Amino acid sequence: MYDAKRNDWEVIRFKGNSLSIENEEIATEFPLTIILNGEEFATMVCSPSNLHELLVGFLASEGIIRFYDEINRITIDEERGFAYIEIPKSLETIEYDHSKRFIGSCCGKSRQFYFKSDVKTAKTIVSRLSISVDQCYALMEQLQDRSKQFLRTGGVHNAALCTPDEVLMLRTDIGRHNALDKLYGRIIEDRIPLSDKLIVFSGRISSEVLLKISKIGVGILISKSAPTDLALRLAEDLQITAVGFARGNKLNVYTHPSRIVEANRK
Amino acid sequence: MYDAKRNDWEVIRFKGNSLSIENEEIATEFPLTIILNGEEFATMVCSPSNLHELLVGFLASEGIIRFYDEINRITIDEERGFAYIEIPKSLETIEYDHSKRFIGSCCGKSRQFYFKSDVKTAKTIVSRLSISVDQCYALMEQLQDRSKQFLRTGGVHNAALCTPDEVLMLRTDIGRHNALDKLYGRIIEDRIPLSDKLIVFSGRISSEVLLKISKIGVGILISKSAPTDLALRLAEDLQITAVGFARGNKLNVYTHPSRIVEANRK
Repeated sequence: MYDAKRNDWEVIRFKGNSLSIENEEIATEFPLTIILNGEEFATMVCSPSNLHELLVGFLASEGIIRFYDEINRITIDEERGFAYIEIPKSLETIEYDHSKRFIGSCCGKSRQFYFKSDVKTAKTIVSRLSISVDQCYALMEQLQDRSKQFLRTGGVHNAALCTPDEVLMLRTDIGRHNALDKLYGRIIEDRIPLSDKLIVFSGRISSEVLLKISKIGVGILISKSAPTDLALRLAEDLQITAVGFARGNKLNVYTHPSRIVEANRK
Repeated sequence: MYDAKRNDWEVIRFKGNSLSIENEEIATEFPLTIILNGEEFATMVCSPSNLHELLVGFLASEGIIRFYDEINRITIDEERGFAYIEIPKSLETIEYDHSKRFIGSCCGKSRQFYFKSDVKTAKTIVSRLSISVDQCYALMEQLQDRSKQFLRTGGVHNAALCTPDEVLMLRTDIGRHNALDKLYGRIIEDRIPLSDKLIVFSGRISSEVLLKISKIGVGILISKSAPTDLALRLAEDLQITAVGFARGNKLNVYTHPSRIVEANRK
């Protein structure tokens, strides 16, 4: 029932008990395996767009690189789903602690970090940017209007780099972390200054998402979805303003309300 | 702003420009590190309920065990977020290929498997169970009504083991794979027969979700959300009936419609 060219799927659609047969566009899920300095490093499952950005953002998120010029070469074999990345550092010297659980002191700060690598790469955000709630509503509306793929398939997440007034760059992926990594990759490659920027996002605010926001270096995150407690504790620590459930003309401010104009007046 | 006992968070809630301060219950995100035969094996982030089931289901999903009695001991240190698991096999003999990309032939079947371990553990489903669309609607309604945590926090996923007539067992987690692993753990521990069972699920039908359904051994998956193309190609191969966008009195049948009574009549 699969049409590779259009990525359509013939679907039997029911409304009540009545049936129709229709073609529906389905979100593509693309496995991409990263070979880093000749060694199999990770396989991610993603939407096959902006792959170069995704790889750059992934390497930065993982703490493998900090700047774009720390990458010698990226070659992508889209046909087979492999990316070959060369970096000057050897993998041994990177001291890759991604999968190593961080065991903090029981009562100290930052107990919420659970991977060693995050302790090194997460940054406290000192941004003085502020935004009004009406600007928040408008940006979320723009995010949804502009994501045609979301409208067509319902199966993707969106992340946008914005100023308080406009969406500058929108990235889409079936994986919410990938959508953020695509933004991050472009930010690193173009050295985009971030002091007047924020991120608007369709997905849930999990600890992993919050840590990514901190690594990118943005002080305000506005999401359509719910946060988790761990994410909010990280947001408190890292001084990120977390806004959730931004839908229509409603939103919730969870942490560091000083950057939201009207919350600040209370 | 965090109240550990109730897991409430003080939130500034905006409707338009008017503000109220309220306590909101937030979904808990709990990092759990698995020490398998004395070695750090994985860290998962989950909701801290049914952890024993989660661990059993995770081991089975990863192909580490097939039966419950292949586990010698599970000890959970909830305070520190560690689980110590002893299995009789040594880790070397398990030949753990989870992270190894599977490179299939270009035009053969099963090209969609991308991890070697999945090639070994995914099963083709021969279930002859069938269900009517009205039963599908009713089960999805039950799933949502019964998940109080979802209603309160909006930040969790639900998976339920059902017969066509009723929800038998509901599991909830912030991670959609974990919700399925919790079901799987209980199924394995209690050796629940599956020939008359299906799974109803709140999350997206990704390839990983579809593979888990096949490993569990259920022939019908009904989800509230969208599928991906890779998941549908796997469902075709593994003979799983994938139903998506089941909301109110609508649903889409994507693969193997013979198990849906009314689709079968077309």
